[in-house]
Amino acid sequence: MASQGLLSSLPVPAWLQGQSTRSFSTTPRQRRLTIENINQNVVEAEYAVRGELAVKSEKYREQLRNKDTSLPFDTVISANIGNPQQLDQKPITFFRQVLSLMENPLLLEHPDVLTKSLGYKQDAIDRAKTLLDDVKSVGAYSASKGAPGIRRSVANFIEKRDGFPADPENIFLSAGASGGVSTLLNVMCADANSGVLVPIPQYPLYTATLALLNAKCVPYELEEDKSWGTNLDAIRASYAKAKAEGTSVRSIVIINPGNPTGATLSVEDIKSVLKFAAEEKLVVMADEVYQTNVFVGKFTSFKQCLRELQQSEENKDGKFDTLELVSMHSISKGMIGECGHRGGYFELVGFDEKVTEQIYKFVSIQLCPPVIGQCLVSLMVEPPVEGDPSYETYHAEERGIFDGLQKRATALYEAFREMEGVSCQSPTGSMYLFPTITLPPKAIEKAKQEGRKPDEYYCLRLLDATGVCVVAGSGFGQKEGTLHFRTTFLAPGTEWVGRITKFHKEFMDEFR
Amino acid sequence: MASQGLLSSLPVPAWLQGQSTRSFSTTPRQRRLTIENINQNVVEAEYAVRGELAVKSEKYREQLRNKDTSLPFDTVISANIGNPQQLDQKPITFFRQVLSLMENPLLLEHPDVLTKSLGYKQDAIDRAKTLLDDVKSVGAYSASKGAPGIRRSVANFIEKRDGFPADPENIFLSAGASGGVSTLLNVMCADANSGVLVPIPQYPLYTATLALLNAKCVPYELEEDKSWGTNLDAIRASYAKAKAEGTSVRSIVIINPGNPTGATLSVEDIKSVLKFAAEEKLVVMADEVYQTNVFVGKFTSFKQCLRELQQSEENKDGKFDTLELVSMHSISKGMIGECGHRGGYFELVGFDEKVTEQIYKFVSIQLCPPVIGQCLVSLMVEPPVEGDPSYETYHAEERGIFDGLQKRATALYEAFREMEGVSCQSPTGSMYLFPTITLPPKAIEKAKQEGRKPDEYYCLRLLDATGVCVVAGSGFGQKEGTLHFRTTFLAPGTEWVGRITKFHKEFMDEFR
Repeated sequence: MASQGLLSSLPVPAWLQGQSTRSFSTTPRQRRLTIENINQNVVEAEYAVRGELAVKSEKYREQLRNKDTSLPFDTVISANIGNPQQLDQKPITFFRQVLSLMENPLLLEHPDVLTKSLGYKQDAIDRAKTLLDDVKSVGAYSASKGAPGIRRSVANFIEKRDGFPADPENIFLSAGASGGVSTLLNVMCADANSGVLVPIPQYPLYTATLALLNAKCVPYELEEDKSWGTNLDAIRASYAKAKAEGTSVRSIVIINPGNPTGATLSVEDIKSVLKFAAEEKLVVMADEVYQTNVFVGKFTSFKQCLRELQQSEENKDGKFDTLELVSMHSISKGMIGECGHRGGYFELVGFDEKVTEQIYKFVSIQLCPPVIGQCLVSLMVEPPVEGDPSYETYHAEERGIFDGLQKRATALYEAFREMEGVSCQSPTGSMYLFPTITLPPKAIEKAKQEGRKPDEYYCLRLLDATGVCVVAGSGFGQKEGTLHFRTTFLAPGTEWVGRITKFHKEFMDEFR
Repeated sequence: MASQGLLSSLPVPAWLQGQSTRSFSTTPRQRRLTIENINQNVVEAEYAVRGELAVKSEKYREQLRNKDTSLPFDTVISANIGNPQQLDQKPITFFRQVLSLMENPLLLEHPDVLTKSLGYKQDAIDRAKTLLDDVKSVGAYSASKGAPGIRRSVANFIEKRDGFPADPENIFLSAGASGGVSTLLNVMCADANSGVLVPIPQYPLYTATLALLNAKCVPYELEEDKSWGTNLDAIRASYAKAKAEGTSVRSIVIINPGNPTGATLSVEDIKSVLKFAAEEKLVVMADEVYQTNVFVGKFTSFKQCLRELQQSEENKDGKFDTLELVSMHSISKGMIGECGHRGGYFELVGFDEKVTEQIYKFVSIQLCPPVIGQCLVSLMVEPPVEGDPSYETYHAEERGIFDGLQKRATALYEAFREMEGVSCQSPTGSMYLFPTITLPPKAIEKAKQEGRKPDEYYCLRLLDATGVCVVAGSGFGQKEGTLHFRTTFLAPGTEWVGRITKFHKEFMDEFR
């Protein structure tokens, strides 16, 4: 019982306070579950974004909340995770107005009050009514793959974005993109011999989920020198090696724009991945959650590129016709940043109907994605357009967030450029920078003594000294012999960037 | 491509319309994923609540929406799933007022408008502010196991309910109870040899999740004749058999009040299960999501009974001290019925700290439960109390829903009593009745010809004839040689009960 904290508002018997050793004086009943006998795939899985450093940073935050003045900083900066609204990003007004009406439809009985006193525009009211017609109540389960009207909206959005039609029946709404990734990997991986090509560095959801499934991660390295683009030779080599080892490779994951790299792939790069997948008969998993977070270049979807290839001369043997592609999107990123609402979708292209049925069954066991999150997906794909009463505010807010992200990304990048032993690709998109750090041999030695990877040690020291929480590159995977860390550029202001600069200088001096 | 529907708003090339056979005239690239090579655990899993009948009922609903007059009914009654707000149950006003403020905190700048024109009371406003202090924004990720303040509220609720303290650190918020069940089974089951005792009949989430994990369901039968209570002899026999077969049984699941049975266990029954679990070193999984849906008897929690046993003489050898118990609760049921919001929690009692850490890591990979659903959990466990401005309305709404459920349960029960070959336990709780049906041999023969289980055949015919969708007993498990179906008593009115009566008579006559 000793491990259980207790509240003091009720009388607690002495033995519950652990003052009696009675139960341990005889042979105590052992617990059923121990770290040794539970699911070892769970024990093996790693998820650095919410790992040791994140937990420690939460403890520091709690200490500061309790007016602890012993720490060398007065705020914790959570730069470890793309959580915009925790870092003061304001939600888009139009979206939240609609959601407030969905939650309390009784408000719709007072349209005058809404418009005259509370700043609602008619389009927010109309939108809420349309969505309520579709879902009936946000408190009701929807169909397992999402409300039909919302799936139609998503299909329209894809069609407008790509210039090619989309079928609502192939759209599955999900709890964030993560829910979709988990579903797809669960269905695709049949056994310990099933493998999936995953970029290095990658968002650790992929490796963690593969570890839970006891399936194989087949890593392929991105090219840091070429703005973290895909290198088809590296992909081919990894694939060939896995195949030679007898791994049944099922799929290739591409994160575009990249996480943690921020890189946006060119149409050529996307098409060469699709060609490779067609040749080798692999499912393409396109994680496109950062599709609007692009500062440099232009986002093109895998779906559009696939449709273009299907119509091209290159498809004369029909090899692209049955290429299976799944593309994920989310309300968590972009200028929306509504990750707490857990909304997203995936679109299946070219899947066998019987496999699609199994995906449906899998998602139905968890009943349905959160319905209010589904409504946000609908708003994301059908925001106010020019001429709508809410458009001006929406547009200004959306641009303001975009510009703020770009400004902070640049400030951070400039700071990194000045730091000794740090090099960084210029910011191109997503919400992250992923600088390389070169640490002095003495620092690497010290890390070793403490039983830590060098980049982990650096990030831990950074947190302890500054309250800034970032994630070590080893959490995402990195080329042998290189060290990185990932930081978001979401935190407001630039004061915290100064903290990093100061720490870095002192750290380098300490180990010189 | 033939399986993909297409929108018509863009010009579709001929080949995309399937008019070209080009791609199939040479050797086409085969798909990577087929029903044969995907995860066979997914293929094997069954989930009748959202299975074939539910899918068919949705198609009927769509047909009616499109003014199809060929069907012999004019509405579809979804009595297959506990989805109260899809069946016109109104949400609790206070809850939704608070949520609307959480979604649009700008409303809080107009307290006068809220209270004078829109019916908000001061306690709704205050509550929203308190919750916003805790979560900051419902669009931000919370801590992986839920917002700290909400977990404290849950701990207070448990303490008040049971008379024993609870530790917020042992509370994990989840996406409905389903999310918690999935987490726990994933962590507990190490391999194909791991088993879990599951009641028969049961809510099929348990068998489906065990199938996905390729772990063993160890079924134990409930006693229909004793109001569907637990029968310790049956439990012991199933356990002994599984153990003899070499299964590593880890846990026993108890659903109390029962689903689909509605039975509420006595304190004696609960304690005898706990004693059995202590002796055999099993984790107790107490699914207590229907704890307020009790018409007959009184709900007592497993946690309370465990604490009482720990303080009793029976614990002189300390065997209850380390008994591991997990208790699940949800916002989906009770008089709340907010299943679309996907909120719930589980409390861990007596777990090894290292195992708890692994549970934490597992949930962190999916980031966090929906934050607005977390807020609803908070409201569920801390509703308005006497003296609060919103209390009167809250109380009236809550009682109104309770009385309505009881009234409809009784009407349905009375109808079943009149039907030939149908017997039914009187309604005692939850949201379901689970009558036994005795079908004529000719009907059973006919079902066999159609390749269906007799109860499935009956339910399918019921749906086709009446639009009423129920779930066959075989979807929950039933004693060899018995047939049942599960129906909710959520649908408004009693007209649909008449449809069942009429169908049943005709069905019996047809096969006499």
